[in-house]
Amino acid sequence: MATKKIAILTGGGDCPGLNAVIRAVTRTAILKYGYEVIGYKYGYRGLYKNDFIPLTLDTVSGILHKGGTILYSSNKDNLFDYAVEENGKIVKKDVSDVAVENLKKENVDVLVVIGGDGTLTSARDFARKGVKVIGIPKTIDNDLYSTDLTFGFYSAIDVATDALDRLHTTAESHHRIMILEVMGRNAGWIALYSGIAGSADVILIPEIPYSIEKVVEKVEQRKAQGKPFSIIVIAEGAKPKDGSVVISKIVEDSPDPVRLGGIGNKLASDLEKLIKSNEIRCTVLGHIQRGGNTSTFDRILSTRYGVAAVELIHQEKFGNMVCLKGDTITYDSLENVIGKTKNVDPNSELVQVARSIGISFGD
Amino acid sequence: MATKKIAILTGGGDCPGLNAVIRAVTRTAILKYGYEVIGYKYGYRGLYKNDFIPLTLDTVSGILHKGGTILYSSNKDNLFDYAVEENGKIVKKDVSDVAVENLKKENVDVLVVIGGDGTLTSARDFARKGVKVIGIPKTIDNDLYSTDLTFGFYSAIDVATDALDRLHTTAESHHRIMILEVMGRNAGWIALYSGIAGSADVILIPEIPYSIEKVVEKVEQRKAQGKPFSIIVIAEGAKPKDGSVVISKIVEDSPDPVRLGGIGNKLASDLEKLIKSNEIRCTVLGHIQRGGNTSTFDRILSTRYGVAAVELIHQEKFGNMVCLKGDTITYDSLENVIGKTKNVDPNSELVQVARSIGISFGD
Amino acid sequence: MATKKIAILTGGGDCPGLNAVIRAVTRTAILKYGYEVIGYKYGYRGLYKNDFIPLTLDTVSGILHKGGTILYSSNKDNLFDYAVEENGKIVKKDVSDVAVENLKKENVDVLVVIGGDGTLTSARDFARKGVKVIGIPKTIDNDLYSTDLTFGFYSAIDVATDALDRLHTTAESHHRIMILEVMGRNAGWIALYSGIAGSADVILIPEIPYSIEKVVEKVEQRKAQGKPFSIIVIAEGAKPKDGSVVISKIVEDSPDPVRLGGIGNKLASDLEKLIKSNEIRCTVLGHIQRGGNTSTFDRILSTRYGVAAVELIHQEKFGNMVCLKGDTITYDSLENVIGKTKNVDPNSELVQVARSIGISFGD
Amino acid sequence: MATKKIAILTGGGDCPGLNAVIRAVTRTAILKYGYEVIGYKYGYRGLYKNDFIPLTLDTVSGILHKGGTILYSSNKDNLFDYAVEENGKIVKKDVSDVAVENLKKENVDVLVVIGGDGTLTSARDFARKGVKVIGIPKTIDNDLYSTDLTFGFYSAIDVATDALDRLHTTAESHHRIMILEVMGRNAGWIALYSGIAGSADVILIPEIPYSIEKVVEKVEQRKAQGKPFSIIVIAEGAKPKDGSVVISKIVEDSPDPVRLGGIGNKLASDLEKLIKSNEIRCTVLGHIQRGGNTSTFDRILSTRYGVAAVELIHQEKFGNMVCLKGDTITYDSLENVIGKTKNVDPNSELVQVARSIGISFGD
Repeated sequence: MATKKIAILTGGGDCPGLNAVIRAVTRTAILKYGYEVIGYKYGYRGLYKNDFIPLTLDTVSGILHKGGTILYSSNKDNLFDYAVEENGKIVKKDVSDVAVENLKKENVDVLVVIGGDGTLTSARDFARKGVKVIGIPKTIDNDLYSTDLTFGFYSAIDVATDALDRLHTTAESHHRIMILEVMGRNAGWIALYSGIAGSADVILIPEIPYSIEKVVEKVEQRKAQGKPFSIIVIAEGAKPKDGSVVISKIVEDSPDPVRLGGIGNKLASDLEKLIKSNEIRCTVLGHIQRGGNTSTFDRILSTRYGVAAVELIHQEKFGNMVCLKGDTITYDSLENVIGKTKNVDPNSELVQVARSIGISFGD
Repeated sequence: MATKKIAILTGGGDCPGLNAVIRAVTRTAILKYGYEVIGYKYGYRGLYKNDFIPLTLDTVSGILHKGGTILYSSNKDNLFDYAVEENGKIVKKDVSDVAVENLKKENVDVLVVIGGDGTLTSARDFARKGVKVIGIPKTIDNDLYSTDLTFGFYSAIDVATDALDRLHTTAESHHRIMILEVMGRNAGWIALYSGIAGSADVILIPEIPYSIEKVVEKVEQRKAQGKPFSIIVIAEGAKPKDGSVVISKIVEDSPDPVRLGGIGNKLASDLEKLIKSNEIRCTVLGHIQRGGNTSTFDRILSTRYGVAAVELIHQEKFGNMVCLKGDTITYDSLENVIGKTKNVDPNSELVQVARSIGISFGD
Repeated sequence: MATKKIAILTGGGDCPGLNAVIRAVTRTAILKYGYEVIGYKYGYRGLYKNDFIPLTLDTVSGILHKGGTILYSSNKDNLFDYAVEENGKIVKKDVSDVAVENLKKENVDVLVVIGGDGTLTSARDFARKGVKVIGIPKTIDNDLYSTDLTFGFYSAIDVATDALDRLHTTAESHHRIMILEVMGRNAGWIALYSGIAGSADVILIPEIPYSIEKVVEKVEQRKAQGKPFSIIVIAEGAKPKDGSVVISKIVEDSPDPVRLGGIGNKLASDLEKLIKSNEIRCTVLGHIQRGGNTSTFDRILSTRYGVAAVELIHQEKFGNMVCLKGDTITYDSLENVIGKTKNVDPNSELVQVARSIGISFGD
Repeated sequence: MATKKIAILTGGGDCPGLNAVIRAVTRTAILKYGYEVIGYKYGYRGLYKNDFIPLTLDTVSGILHKGGTILYSSNKDNLFDYAVEENGKIVKKDVSDVAVENLKKENVDVLVVIGGDGTLTSARDFARKGVKVIGIPKTIDNDLYSTDLTFGFYSAIDVATDALDRLHTTAESHHRIMILEVMGRNAGWIALYSGIAGSADVILIPEIPYSIEKVVEKVEQRKAQGKPFSIIVIAEGAKPKDGSVVISKIVEDSPDPVRLGGIGNKLASDLEKLIKSNEIRCTVLGHIQRGGNTSTFDRILSTRYGVAAVELIHQEKFGNMVCLKGDTITYDSLENVIGKTKNVDPNSELVQVARSIGISFGD
């Protein structure tokens, strides 16, 4: 039975390019194949509550460059384990059948899910229930398996690189050690790319545990070469080598440990104890990396993903996620993609490039 | 006795425009009046150690747009109360005579000091000792007395406004309350200007103590109007009204209270306890505000200040600081300027403008 | 009789900040004074055709930073001399009474007109007919009389300065003379400001006729100083001194003289004949100066203007235009403002500043 | 015989990333392999005149983000057909032996040539003469054969996309047809990428000759859909289909045809004759595309190229050019690369993507 109507939803954290994907899916679906398109609001929650808007050429007009998502998003709505109120209590239930019913009620033939590993896990689970699903990968951290790049990533490294450029002038003028903590809980892609682009002296990532002594060594080596300042970029998931001497602890007992503590500030505290002749400052870039206008690169990648998703629908290749290999748009089975992480390979060309130009990974 | 040689130094924290001032002073001095120019390195420390470089047309070439200072800076070097080692101990001494001797030795006729209140206080003290001094006001916070604007300020609010724009897309898409903490220890200028330019819903500044209830009220009022997200910009020196209920405390006992705690994070913690239906995120913009390229506006203002300083030298009006009143470059006595702060007047036009378009100050 | 309903219209060319003004007028009118607000579309044409939209808090949401105008504009619609079809012919007629009738029909108490000299001339003429009018000055060129600054101007010089920065790297690497033609038909403000901010070597403006020999002299002088490249910014209305030797003519007989010819390209042709050792390139910046996001500075100025316009309405001070003097928002009679141009004074501080740092005006 | 000393030169037009390449080559050569590095100034001219500078860690400090080239460049210096003065006349001669002698005199083991097809043709010719050469591809147009991407290209499309964003607001507010002419004499890559990223309605490129009627059709179709404005991006090398009706000619007899005329302005003239209800404006982006800061993407790509060039030297794989295939850095023989152009394939995925979302190519 041919596709006539598709639905889109966006799940998880913010990521520049979501609107560009929505626009490309909608325009291609309408203009090229004559499909009808709707968009569920707030990710899976909208699918559960059957809360949607029609997506027309007008709805998606003027959104190509805009961050955020016109469909809104929610962070943790897993319909297979969903918090509902029953008899005055909050209980977790599988409400996925409600979602399937809603899709039937609205005559939706295919569901296009734009999201990260969590959101796409649900997409796979709906596929297992017989729903025709197409996934589109989204993660600011670029750590999704089976795709070389995800949209939003280059927008984030543009922001991080700009921040490093700004910190550079102060570091140089004031002989400081400037630390920038960027996103990357499990994977150090943002730190690696922005560190190379932003002329960092040290890049610390989860994939390469660091020793504080090596960081100090690099800073001192630079001083000896007439560079009495250093720039360090650190992924939020970076960690010292096992067995390292504990110098200062991340504040766990503060009102808000996640927000107040953090590895960047720990590193600053540690370095303050070991390096006396420089002032040390840490900036946590935070949500600024996730919002704002979508970069040129990501507008193009998002558009390619959106068009490719509709082509997969037209070819009835359901249960797949679009992805990028090299410069080729292709696809992979959701079953194959889920639950894995794409990490920085410490032996990869880009890490070697960084080392070749003198960047230290603290190892 | 006519001026033949002038010296420049830059003191205090980083501020976009320092290089533009150095360039304008140097070019005007050389091209228009034929003065010789040198620059002391690391602020007053260089004056004490007689550590300087000649400033020529070549030295100042290509630096107009660059943040930082080619003369470097130091933060706390007060030669009237200077830390020196004597018999293996660090003692504080008045070493200003050494500086005066150095100026004589190098035949420097006039000293141009670019800095904030601390740096300019020393400039005044040197003036009292008979040194011919011209001051040029520098503060990222824009809180120096007797001048309407200081360079660097508009560069900082460009950065803060850009950050607010970025936070806006996420706030809207994810129905969040986004808090941005900006600089402004004593005065709320950056928060006020960037809040208006960046479409903030709430602006919290030191000059208008806030009540957390009023902030919550604004957020809830917006929800009632169909806007389930809010943007709050808060100056680092903002504070709750006396007598407010203490909800969460700033972490004072952390390894690094200044860096980890902070009013923005406190506000986030407080709001989390009072508002259940939104996620709340705080970003502390930090040193990103101080570095990077100088904005168009500040390049022009810095250049005007630099030229005006040399004109004051030519007219032998020593002991003064150049300043901006309205759109007119003028000057004021250092004696009159020092030790005062220019605060946001809660009844000023700009605060009224903000209130008129619906921005809350939490009061 | 108290104001209950106001109408806004935007006329003339594009200018970043129009939406910020519309937003500030609308929000202040509704939130502070409870007025109803409508917006006529396409400037006076919408007033003539009674084509308007209601302006609500929702209508003006999310537009603060956006270039363009949500009310659209038209360039040459003067209702006092309006092209209408009568008996199959186009004739020019005074249709202003129709406009007045429309205002009455819609119970509009006050008309807020945002525009340049042409648009505001009509506003004055409506005032003379008894319509309660408030003007808000708009000109990218900054040449409106009685106000120190108009919004959009700083956005334009940000764009021009960025272009000069870009041309600089190529000029320096390739030893070129790079010419940038910027807007400014009658007044050289954009060239003057961006020339200082963008490190131009020569600034050519309508107010200071140039001699080509002086331009060549400056270029050669720079070479002698080891700078084998030069940057020239020229206002579109700049002109050689009377009696100058005609070297090359502006192409008048091309299909589109205005677009193809132009003073920047003439200057390039002239210099090619006089300077053999450099390649010379001219870029006409054109409409890029008028569009795109509104700068921080202009967002604030536009907001101040919008709020001030509503305050004038509240105070029943009709027939006036809001304006900026120094850093103070004030107002002046439309009768006093119209038909005059604010030119760069060749003896002004800013021109002297430019000369002091070695910039040539070709005179 | 192991490499001990390498020389770098940059040839041809400006391109953001040249400095990043120079820096990466120099740092890797010194830090990783202990080579000595020098840089010839002004491309091959410096090689001929033996005009060079040493390249050290200090020389390449702080240049990663800067446009231009610290080694300068020249556009048309082919040492195999070089203009020299002999007996008062300019004659063309093969002076390549002088260059080879200079390399020997300075004990240069390997020459790294960064340039486009012309510059690399000479590199190949030196390789044929026995010089150990490594090529690094540089073209703003991205039309070099055998590499998927060249640095500078993404910086250029960032600028073009920003310009399209700016034109968009005016087009929409003023119901205009805005034309942007971008670089691309033989290949339409910049137009294609920036057109997709900048939300163009029509993209005209050399590879797909256009018919003016199809362009008009697209504009009218948009009006029928309630979009009374259009954005057209056109590569400078775009051309109408053979047999098209000639509407207006490019001005060939003007003082400077290359500069004044141009396909963008021709298109504007043509459309003005065919479309009456819109104002039409053309902007020629010109050299702004080539200068300014290097984008994040290009900083990384340039760094990878620079490191890879040194690795090829270390592996003694001379006579090759580094290149990018997909996301893999590899290399190809200069013999294989020269004299070919990489054009946009009208059937490629990206052209299909553009068509899918409704962009017209005027065919």
